[in-house]
Amino acid sequence: MRAHILTIGDELLIGQTINTNAAWIGEQLDHAGIDVLRAVTVGDDHAGIRAALAAALAEAEVVILTGGLGPTHDDVTKLAVAEHLGLELQFHPEILDGVRDLFERRGREMPASNHTQAMVPEGSEVLPNRHGTAPGLWIEHAKNGSLQIVVLLPGVPFEMRTLMTEHVIPRLASRHGLHNIVHRVLHVSGIGESNLQELLGDMSPFFEEGVRLAYLPGPSTIRLRLTAVGEARQEAEARLDAFEAAIRERAGRFIFGTADDTLESVVGGMLRERGRTLALAESCTGGHILDRMTDFPGSSDYIKGGLVAYCNEVKIGTLQVSPETLRSDGAVSEAVAIQMARGVRLLTRADIGMSTTGIAGPSGGTPEKPVGLVWIGFSDASDAFAVKFQFGDDRVVNKERSGAALLNLLRKRLLEEESARR
Amino acid sequence: MRAHILTIGDELLIGQTINTNAAWIGEQLDHAGIDVLRAVTVGDDHAGIRAALAAALAEAEVVILTGGLGPTHDDVTKLAVAEHLGLELQFHPEILDGVRDLFERRGREMPASNHTQAMVPEGSEVLPNRHGTAPGLWIEHAKNGSLQIVVLLPGVPFEMRTLMTEHVIPRLASRHGLHNIVHRVLHVSGIGESNLQELLGDMSPFFEEGVRLAYLPGPSTIRLRLTAVGEARQEAEARLDAFEAAIRERAGRFIFGTADDTLESVVGGMLRERGRTLALAESCTGGHILDRMTDFPGSSDYIKGGLVAYCNEVKIGTLQVSPETLRSDGAVSEAVAIQMARGVRLLTRADIGMSTTGIAGPSGGTPEKPVGLVWIGFSDASDAFAVKFQFGDDRVVNKERSGAALLNLLRKRLLEEESARR
Repeated sequence: MRAHILTIGDELLIGQTINTNAAWIGEQLDHAGIDVLRAVTVGDDHAGIRAALAAALAEAEVVILTGGLGPTHDDVTKLAVAEHLGLELQFHPEILDGVRDLFERRGREMPASNHTQAMVPEGSEVLPNRHGTAPGLWIEHAKNGSLQIVVLLPGVPFEMRTLMTEHVIPRLASRHGLHNIVHRVLHVSGIGESNLQELLGDMSPFFEEGVRLAYLPGPSTIRLRLTAVGEARQEAEARLDAFEAAIRERAGRFIFGTADDTLESVVGGMLRERGRTLALAESCTGGHILDRMTDFPGSSDYIKGGLVAYCNEVKIGTLQVSPETLRSDGAVSEAVAIQMARGVRLLTRADIGMSTTGIAGPSGGTPEKPVGLVWIGFSDASDAFAVKFQFGDDRVVNKERSGAALLNLLRKRLLEEESARR
Repeated sequence: MRAHILTIGDELLIGQTINTNAAWIGEQLDHAGIDVLRAVTVGDDHAGIRAALAAALAEAEVVILTGGLGPTHDDVTKLAVAEHLGLELQFHPEILDGVRDLFERRGREMPASNHTQAMVPEGSEVLPNRHGTAPGLWIEHAKNGSLQIVVLLPGVPFEMRTLMTEHVIPRLASRHGLHNIVHRVLHVSGIGESNLQELLGDMSPFFEEGVRLAYLPGPSTIRLRLTAVGEARQEAEARLDAFEAAIRERAGRFIFGTADDTLESVVGGMLRERGRTLALAESCTGGHILDRMTDFPGSSDYIKGGLVAYCNEVKIGTLQVSPETLRSDGAVSEAVAIQMARGVRLLTRADIGMSTTGIAGPSGGTPEKPVGLVWIGFSDASDAFAVKFQFGDDRVVNKERSGAALLNLLRKRLLEEESARR
C-alpha cells in the first residue's frame, strides 16, 4: 500500500509554520507498513489542491490531506476534493449538532460560519473530532475497479493526531494487514561520513537481502538508518538484527546510541548508572554543554554544575589556573585545559571535571592557534589529560562540535574504565 | 517569479527528521518576493526525484532542491537531475581540491568516495560550500526560449542556509529585479499574543492601505511580521514606515528589536555600548542563558562568565549564599536569587550579576513552590532585587522562558538607567 501526504496551508509554504504534521503522519504510516511515496505542501488554493490530489491518485492507494477544513474563507480543501472526485456536498445535521455542543461546552455561541463544517462530500464517512469543530472525512473512491482512500483531516496538530490514532491508522491497518517495513537508527560520533563508509566497507550482500542503509549527518554526529522489508515482521526484524550486528562489528566503537538517544542522554545515563558526578569548566563553549546536559529531568543527580570561565579572573581566582601558565602557554593550551578541569572538579567536589578552551571564532585566530582550535581537558582523582581538536570557523557549530567531542571523550573514558575493571 | 521547493530524503518522508529546510527556504523566497507554489518531499529515489522535478519545471521558473548530495550510495540527487535535464556529469578538479583542503584542515585524510563530489552536471556553476564537502550547484535550463533555474543544495541545514544567504538569494534577487513586496519583523517580549492584539487595537485603516500583519508567537517572544505591497519599492517602504510607527506608538515598550535581532544580541549590544559587564549564576536554567549570550563573536567583551550552580556546595562555597537562608527560605526563593546574583558579581568582578533559581520540572514541585516557579535575581553596585515568574511544566520551555525573562529584565533596567540619567 502506497501513500501520499498532502498538507495544505499558505503558512506552511512560506515558513511561518514548520510542517510537523507531514513528519508525524509519515512516521505513523511508515510504522503501519505503508510506503510513503511523497509529501506535498500546497497553499490554500483550489487549483493547487486539485493538481496535487490528481498526482497523488495517479500513483498512491491512500492520500492523507490535512488543513484547510476550517470555517473561514481560505479553507477550500473540502470543496476542491469534492469537485475533483465529482461528489456533491451534502448537509449533515449531526455534524452541526456536534459543533454547537462544542461551543456550548466552552460557553460561547456558535458563529453562523460554522454551518459550512456540516457540508460533506456525498458518500464520505464522518470521523468525529473530539477536540475541534472540523470532523475528519474518510472517502472511498473507485478507480479501475480498485478502491482508493482519501482522508481529510484538520490541520491543528493535536486534533489531527487524535483522529489519525483513533480512526485512520486502525482502519488502514485492518484493511492492509501487513507490517513488513522495519526501521532502526544507530547514532555515531567521532568519525566523519566518508570515513565511516570506508570502515563499513562492502555492504552489498546485505543490500541484496532487502535491507537499506542511509547516512544522516548532523553537524557533530551521524545517524545511520537501517531499513528492512520482509513478508512477515519477524523476518524483517531478523534481517535487521543481522545487518545491525555486522555494522556493530565493524564500527561499534563509534556507535553511542539508538532510537531517540542523544550523546548527552547516553552519557548522563552512564554517569547515573555508575554513581559518578560531573562538573564542567567551559570557556569557548560558553555554557552550551551544561545547557544540553541539564535538559533532562533528574540531571541534577549527576551534574554538580560548572563554570563559564570567559575571563582570566575566573580562571585564576575560582578555578586556580596558574597565572604563569596563562602567560607562558596562553589560555588556549593543553596545560590550561587540564588545570581548568581540575579546578572545577575540586571546586564542586565532583568525581570528574572536564573543560573546554579554544578559539570559537569567527576571528581571533593566529597561525599557531587558528580559529576552531579547541582543547578539552579531563581530570579525576587518578588521572588528568587534554585532547586537541581542530574545527572550522563557524562559532555556533564549533560550540556544538566541541560539546559532542567532550561528551564522546567522556563516554569512551567511562567505557574504558569499565573494561579495565573487568 | 514562481518557485517549487524539492526536499529529498527518506528520513523526511517517514518523519525521522522534521523538514525545517522547506520552511526556511520558503520564508527566504517569500521575503525575496518569489511566489512559492509548492513544497514537495520525495525519498532518495531516482524516479521520484525526476518526477517531482518534471512537475516543478512545468510550472515554476525556479526549483530549489536540497539533500542527497553527499558522497554515499544513497545520494542520488545530482544524477537524477543531470539525467532529467540531459546533462553529462563532468569532473571538476577544483571541487576535489576544496574537499581535500577541508579534510586536511581537520587533520584527516580524504576518503576516495569523495571523488563523486567533484562530478558536476555540465554547464552548472559551482557555489562553494564553506562548511562541508558538497558544493551547491546553480543550473540554468532553457525552456521554450526562457530560462529556468535549478539549484541543488546540501541537506545539512547550516550548510544549506549559508549557501542560500550568500549565493542563491542574491543571485535570484539581482535577476528578479522586482522588489515590490516588503517585509519587516518586530520582536516583542514581555506580553502575550492576545494582550498584544488588544493593545494594538483597530488596525483596519492600515490593512485597507495594502499592509498586512502576522503574529508569529514563539515560546518566549512574539515576532510581528509587517508586509506591504506597492508598485514601487519606495511606495511599499513608505506604507510600512507609517504602519510600523503606529505599532510602535501603541506597543513600543514591548518591542526589543527588528530583523535578525534576538534578546541576547540586543542586550549584548546595550552592554557593549555602555561599557558594562555581566556575569550570571544559573541554577534552573543550567547554562542556557550563558550559552545563548556567548553565541556572538566578541561577547567575551561584556560577558565575564558565570556559574551553573546545580548543587548547594557551589551556591554556598563559591557564590557565598548563606546556608541559613538556604535552610529557612529554600534554594528557590527571593533571598537566594539575590545572594546568587551578588555572589557571581563579586566573584567575577562584573558590573552586574544576575541569577536564576527555580523548579524547571517536569516534577519536583510543591503546593507552595509549583513546577515552573522561577526567581530571577539582579545585583549591581547600588541595587539588588529579585522578580518572580510562574511558567508551565515543560522543562526545556521553562529554561527558554526564564532566559527571555532575565534578558528582558536586564534590557528594561538598562533603558531605565539611561532615562534616569537624562
